Amino acid sequence: MPQAGELYEGLEERFRTIGHLRHAESMLSWDEAVMMPSGGGKMRADALAALAGTVHSLEAAPDIAELTDTALAQEDDPWRCANLRQMARVSRRARALPEDLVTALTRASAASEQIWRTARGANDFDAVTKGLEEVLGLTRERGHALAEAVGDGTEPYDALLDEYEPGLTRAAIDPIFGELRDVLPDLIDRAISRQVPAEAPTGPFSIAAQAHLGRTLMRNMGFDFERGRLDVSHHPFCGGEPDDARITTRYDEGDFLKSMFAVLHETGHALYEQGLPPAWRGQPVGVAVGMALHESQSLLMEMQVCRSAPFLAFAAPIVRRAFGVDETDPTWSAANLARLATRVERSFIRVDADEATYPLHIVLRYEIETALLDGSLAVRDIPDAWDEKMQSYLGIGTAGNFKDGCMQDVHWFAGLIGYFPSYILGAVTAAQLWQAARAALPGVEDAIGAGDFAPLLHWLRDNIHGQGRVMAGSDLIVRATGRPLGTEAFLSHLRARYLGEDAAS
Amino acid sequence: MPQAGELYEGLEERFRTIGHLRHAESMLSWDEAVMMPSGGGKMRADALAALAGTVHSLEAAPDIAELTDTALAQEDDPWRCANLRQMARVSRRARALPEDLVTALTRASAASEQIWRTARGANDFDAVTKGLEEVLGLTRERGHALAEAVGDGTEPYDALLDEYEPGLTRAAIDPIFGELRDVLPDLIDRAISRQVPAEAPTGPFSIAAQAHLGRTLMRNMGFDFERGRLDVSHHPFCGGEPDDARITTRYDEGDFLKSMFAVLHETGHALYEQGLPPAWRGQPVGVAVGMALHESQSLLMEMQVCRSAPFLAFAAPIVRRAFGVDETDPTWSAANLARLATRVERSFIRVDADEATYPLHIVLRYEIETALLDGSLAVRDIPDAWDEKMQSYLGIGTAGNFKDGCMQDVHWFAGLIGYFPSYILGAVTAAQLWQAARAALPGVEDAIGAGDFAPLLHWLRDNIHGQGRVMAGSDLIVRATGRPLGTEAFLSHLRARYLGEDAAS
Repeated sequence: MPQAGELYEGLEERFRTIGHLRHAESMLSWDEAVMMPSGGGKMRADALAALAGTVHSLEAAPDIAELTDTALAQEDDPWRCANLRQMARVSRRARALPEDLVTALTRASAASEQIWRTARGANDFDAVTKGLEEVLGLTRERGHALAEAVGDGTEPYDALLDEYEPGLTRAAIDPIFGELRDVLPDLIDRAISRQVPAEAPTGPFSIAAQAHLGRTLMRNMGFDFERGRLDVSHHPFCGGEPDDARITTRYDEGDFLKSMFAVLHETGHALYEQGLPPAWRGQPVGVAVGMALHESQSLLMEMQVCRSAPFLAFAAPIVRRAFGVDETDPTWSAANLARLATRVERSFIRVDADEATYPLHIVLRYEIETALLDGSLAVRDIPDAWDEKMQSYLGIGTAGNFKDGCMQDVHWFAGLIGYFPSYILGAVTAAQLWQAARAALPGVEDAIGAGDFAPLLHWLRDNIHGQGRVMAGSDLIVRATGRPLGTEAFLSHLRARYLGEDAAS
Repeated sequence: MPQAGELYEGLEERFRTIGHLRHAESMLSWDEAVMMPSGGGKMRADALAALAGTVHSLEAAPDIAELTDTALAQEDDPWRCANLRQMARVSRRARALPEDLVTALTRASAASEQIWRTARGANDFDAVTKGLEEVLGLTRERGHALAEAVGDGTEPYDALLDEYEPGLTRAAIDPIFGELRDVLPDLIDRAISRQVPAEAPTGPFSIAAQAHLGRTLMRNMGFDFERGRLDVSHHPFCGGEPDDARITTRYDEGDFLKSMFAVLHETGHALYEQGLPPAWRGQPVGVAVGMALHESQSLLMEMQVCRSAPFLAFAAPIVRRAFGVDETDPTWSAANLARLATRVERSFIRVDADEATYPLHIVLRYEIETALLDGSLAVRDIPDAWDEKMQSYLGIGTAGNFKDGCMQDVHWFAGLIGYFPSYILGAVTAAQLWQAARAALPGVEDAIGAGDFAPLLHWLRDNIHGQGRVMAGSDLIVRATGRPLGTEAFLSHLRARYLGEDAAS
């Protein structure tokens, strides 16, 4: 029997190789979105599939479960133990799914997504139902298989949630989403009724100037350009890896604010990546906790910090310099930029929604996708359910308008069920973290107002980024904020910003 | 026993996966040179090593030799048979090298290259001898191991050559290099004595205009931008893969011709890649023949075609438009550009050498590296040998000037022995192919003069690109030109262009 330490190190070495292959996957995916000419698509898809297959066969090695068990009994370093538990988790998930199910789901999702891309523009819901039913059926099988592997009576939907945010369950989501559903409609009414008009600066805004502005603000926030890049893609995202974090944006020459806030958002993601613990690169314990925590970092930066009056007071002169505009023009004042950055509006499209209405878009999707998964809602009944909930939560109907209703997001058609809740848990977590940071760091808002992100970043590095996956997201939140995740900070943030209910921005 | 066909298809499937992983290696290497921020270097090196290890273990699978033998007995399609022979070759080479030798050589080369990078600037030859001796010793072992795997009394140096250009041997090189060594010194003397001065256009030349010019000419030559890109890197190269061929250049704002010819050169490489047989993507038979053939394609485009008077007559107005210059300025005339494109000069640095002196730089390196490998020359005696040969071939000494002498190239220090001959075989092959193309395609020079590359590209696609690795380079040359590779076409090209000995350009 190997000595204590040896066994652990052998496992670490195996997972290091997996980490390296995942690096390749990550970079090839970035390249596909940012650099690849269209003709490269076929070979790239094949290469990514070959990498995924290689990774899967390493992760699903039959001896990992026993080896991690034995090693856990020998080790007492908390990081090593957490790493072993993550290895066991990775391996359990990899082994849970029969290969033919993985292949069938990949194929069905790709086909269904393909149909959706055409059908959405044609507002043709009938065209997508068959594909979606197939994806849904296979996803249900997937949820059951994953749930069975976890045991303990785990529900299939919880097993799907767990993939995006480990440990997340419906039991944790339901009270939070319930409160948001109860409180937000009235809050939105009041916010809209009291907001004052704001006139947007008019372009064109050159792409070079927008990119320069983005990089200036990124540098200010602490983004390390020795370990990352800003590029252009069709949809903004954060890819790459901790020592090479690659964010993207897209530029609209008629509206620089869109791209600017996208950059600030993605920079929040990238700062998380760049702050992950260097000693654990490529190990399962060295990665971000999950999607919800990741989204909390981008939304903390974008929504809590960068759409605030203090930050925009700091940013306004930089913005004006970037576009060479007159500082006395009122449309370019900090106050007007802040008004533009905090509009509330009931609208159909989730990705364009503001932070007050956004949670209702997610609650609706959550209610529908859980019902789809447990079979209490049929695919053909989605449009009616969607319309009814939109009417009820946001007062706008989508009857017959599938394009701007249930066909607007790729997620379900591409097999991503259990993903949506992360977005809103991220927003709620962001508010609670920012509240805790302000309590822990007197003067942090003044620092942000002076463009100094160092105290905040330092706090995030200590409390979130540097913790990797050493504990579950829910524990990390308790550790950082002193209490479990709840809606209090998020709702008081909205009340302060949109209803003027206290002094905070 | 599997049925005929089944066995072959199983092997093809295995090599398809290898091809996909090589795609990943290729793209990550491109990214490293073009995109990656410095901080990403450590993880990238690890990822590339993990990929190389994975590929190696697949290629070295112990059953491949027997399976390919059996399949060869069952198949009669020439491409399938060639593919099986290439699989056997790949596998034999992968199995020939003990893993500890591969690791030792990788480590020694990396260390030696690292020392060279610093020592070169300091002109410090003593600093590099120990590292080079180690690399050389291990490369000798490598050559022996590879030669033994081939059998038939193969020499170690031939086994090294074979890696860069399959089937290439000293026996094929010696007569060609011997003639060049005998003929060129006098030819160079005469070329220099008769060339007329030319004044270079003065900059600055904006990078945007240079990039636009490069892309315009690339498109003209038939480069497919749906299946490739042009970017910037420290040294120009062609990377990527057939459906996503990525060439790079660097821009000097004081000299647009450097970048322009680098682009034309790399486009020659890329056209080869883009023209490889689509039905054999990712298979061993579907790749380029080797380095010498590859170099023949870049040099055919750059040296034979694009530095010719007819091409420059076509290009001159495009060049002038790119930089917005007056067409009556004599420094921008086609004739002056042609003079600038065909200067002959005895100089120290290989990469800056013109096509007439270049072969002698290679002959010198070939003579030294073969002597180093067989032990008849010691590392400490390289500088004297270098100086003596430079004096003898080019009439310029390098005594004490290691920096511009034996320390100028990374190759030996990085373990690349057997690579240099490809460059010159490429030039000689390019001339012979261009001669054959002109014979086969009456009017092809007029077409080039009108900017029409289609007839030439079509001929190259038929005769070279589309042939993949279905036969050895030497056979491909005979098939395309009607005779084995010789110096006649190359020397008559030089005599025509530099001594005015006939009507060709």
